[in-house]
Amino acid sequence: MTAKNAIYAQSGGVTSVINVSACAVIETAKQYPEQIGKVFAAENGIIGALEERLLDTYLESDEAIAGLMYTPAGAFGSCRHKLKSDSEAFARLIEVFKAHNIGYFFYNGGGDSMDTADKVSRIGQELGYPITCIGIPKTVDNDLPFTDHCPGFGSVAKYVAVSTKEAGFDVQSMAASSTKVFILEVMGRHAGWIAASSVLAKDSADAPPHIILLPEVAFNEGQFLAEVKRCVEAHGYCVVVASEGIRYDNGQFISESGLKDAFGHAQLGGVAPILAGMVKDKLGLKYHWAVADYLQRSARHISSMVDVEQAYALGAHAVKLAVEGINARMPIVVREQDWPYRYRIEDVALSEVANQERKIPDEFISSNGMGVTDACIRYLKPLIQGESYPSYIDGMPVYTRLAKHRVAQKLPAYSVKK
Amino acid sequence: MTAKNAIYAQSGGVTSVINVSACAVIETAKQYPEQIGKVFAAENGIIGALEERLLDTYLESDEAIAGLMYTPAGAFGSCRHKLKSDSEAFARLIEVFKAHNIGYFFYNGGGDSMDTADKVSRIGQELGYPITCIGIPKTVDNDLPFTDHCPGFGSVAKYVAVSTKEAGFDVQSMAASSTKVFILEVMGRHAGWIAASSVLAKDSADAPPHIILLPEVAFNEGQFLAEVKRCVEAHGYCVVVASEGIRYDNGQFISESGLKDAFGHAQLGGVAPILAGMVKDKLGLKYHWAVADYLQRSARHISSMVDVEQAYALGAHAVKLAVEGINARMPIVVREQDWPYRYRIEDVALSEVANQERKIPDEFISSNGMGVTDACIRYLKPLIQGESYPSYIDGMPVYTRLAKHRVAQKLPAYSVKK
Repeated sequence: MTAKNAIYAQSGGVTSVINVSACAVIETAKQYPEQIGKVFAAENGIIGALEERLLDTYLESDEAIAGLMYTPAGAFGSCRHKLKSDSEAFARLIEVFKAHNIGYFFYNGGGDSMDTADKVSRIGQELGYPITCIGIPKTVDNDLPFTDHCPGFGSVAKYVAVSTKEAGFDVQSMAASSTKVFILEVMGRHAGWIAASSVLAKDSADAPPHIILLPEVAFNEGQFLAEVKRCVEAHGYCVVVASEGIRYDNGQFISESGLKDAFGHAQLGGVAPILAGMVKDKLGLKYHWAVADYLQRSARHISSMVDVEQAYALGAHAVKLAVEGINARMPIVVREQDWPYRYRIEDVALSEVANQERKIPDEFISSNGMGVTDACIRYLKPLIQGESYPSYIDGMPVYTRLAKHRVAQKLPAYSVKK
Repeated sequence: MTAKNAIYAQSGGVTSVINVSACAVIETAKQYPEQIGKVFAAENGIIGALEERLLDTYLESDEAIAGLMYTPAGAFGSCRHKLKSDSEAFARLIEVFKAHNIGYFFYNGGGDSMDTADKVSRIGQELGYPITCIGIPKTVDNDLPFTDHCPGFGSVAKYVAVSTKEAGFDVQSMAASSTKVFILEVMGRHAGWIAASSVLAKDSADAPPHIILLPEVAFNEGQFLAEVKRCVEAHGYCVVVASEGIRYDNGQFISESGLKDAFGHAQLGGVAPILAGMVKDKLGLKYHWAVADYLQRSARHISSMVDVEQAYALGAHAVKLAVEGINARMPIVVREQDWPYRYRIEDVALSEVANQERKIPDEFISSNGMGVTDACIRYLKPLIQGESYPSYIDGMPVYTRLAKHRVAQKLPAYSVKK
């Protein structure tokens, strides 16, 4: 068997541990030199693959690749770009694969990316250039089906839980004469997993968060304000954690910036100030609000050790599937036991995963719709276990910037419309 | 000499290390039982002192007090309340002091608090009840004079620098096809020290932050947008860190919620979305924005070791001054050398400190007004050195909640108007 090269690409919103999966793919591939010649990384995800901007990861030092374990965001660049269904883009991709003797395509992303990886596999077959396509799950939103959860989510969950706990201590100490309501806006367009994870800050019945607003539950201003008022009366203060994607009963987002990404999803942001405005106008209470935005998903300094381990395990499993000749699959985490936590790695067909969104199930949502249940806590708690600190030099974390050696282009120039 | 009791009170916006100073006061006082009988903490700062809500810190376990080293925010409650200049409040305070045999008053706060502590000292004298008043500096804003910097600032500086670095990696990996401009709003009403500290994320000339907006420099929309455009063209992306308190040339805040705190300061927030709106409308670039708010000042999980050490040293020094009979002083940090960093603790008169605000000097601000100089970096860098991690149980940091033993009240009830 002659070795073929692999392309690894990062897709969609990045996480604090997507580079851990990249590290796993590269380090594991090196264990199979007879099957995998080199791992090329596509610069800026699928766009770089189409434009033949490939980086030779085997020219990076072992130290640099190991440094990816502790480096947030996408070291090779990610992208928000959905391949058009027309055959041109796919045909071009196969041309690039042929030109660089690519036999394996590892696509590290969310639901849209799994759909793309599945299509690449099928179109490769159709065009007479079979390619082994393996998806590696990654999404802070935790909205992929089949897998117990997605790498990247555990770390953002830990960030949000820790931040909620810390801000909760802050508000509690100020509430007697100042801020009584604090609102933290977190990511989550359609699924409220990130907001839900703030519950892990709750170390007593009175402790924050007091209200969790999920996109799965229609927002009701009257009920929200009544609960804020009740919490302030009961505890002296109220901490609210809100998903960016909460909507009114009619489906309208509480806030919408108007911009849309390449997949047609509205770019949200700014729910917290709108909720704060309600608190001010209707209750006359002093408030503060925060919007965590990219801080939450890039916070490698407070990543979950379990998340880091699993991001690696899934990347390594992807390579093992590929060298066994298994195609069009995505490794997943299967939970064996909540506590003490036990899991194993399995895999599912990409075609099953594609374009499904897993939202928070009803049994995880509390009866008033503004919190989560003990079952949800049992689900979430294992995912934030352990700390995985980067090393620090002069007070700052050491994050790796790669040398990025470009592979010589062999095809005519091709430019992707962004 | 008969031992007298002490009152310790926390004031104003809390920090991630104000409890470290509290711990130092209590632990150090216990070394002087002949001078200091007990340390009572006023609940919710000066309000609790007036209302005779005192907590006996000596009934807390040694472990609980030691736990304050790792617990953010104000463990005894803080307050935003300025003592009225009329003699009634001060007279009441002296009554409380008399009733509980208080000989020492430690006030842990910012400029307003140092003014209050100074007045308490003078009015005690006037009313024939001399009391030793020592201020302990604390403010994330870093705006107190004389001291090289304020405890609390080094930790928020570290949080902002680390967050800027992480978010910068995120934006860089997305910029080719998505977000090109990221705006992080941080605290700082009149002094831009917190925004300035983001510069410590800059590990190369091209690295973020690319623009730092300070309240010391009048905001000019045209120049700002031109610089954003230039950065995106030069680097592919642009990271902006903005102080909440930036204003137009005419003095108007870019954003103002309308609420004011007890000192008459406007409660700000929401500069980032306004800047983002400019970027969207005038440049048409994709953006994201974050508002760190309380997350930045309560982030004990990423506190600076130097900050923790100094918060303790200043609290301990305060007690030593008091037991030596020195009155109306505030311990300060004096810098001996930038790098390797060396400092010593000295002290100044409260009357000199009160009601002064130290802003960023001109020589620390870059020529285009949207960044800081190497001299500023030399000043900031020592303050974020070292990590001081809390312990974790089940994935969450262990923060201490005190038992809070109330001291029996001896005076008629008294209620402070909030």
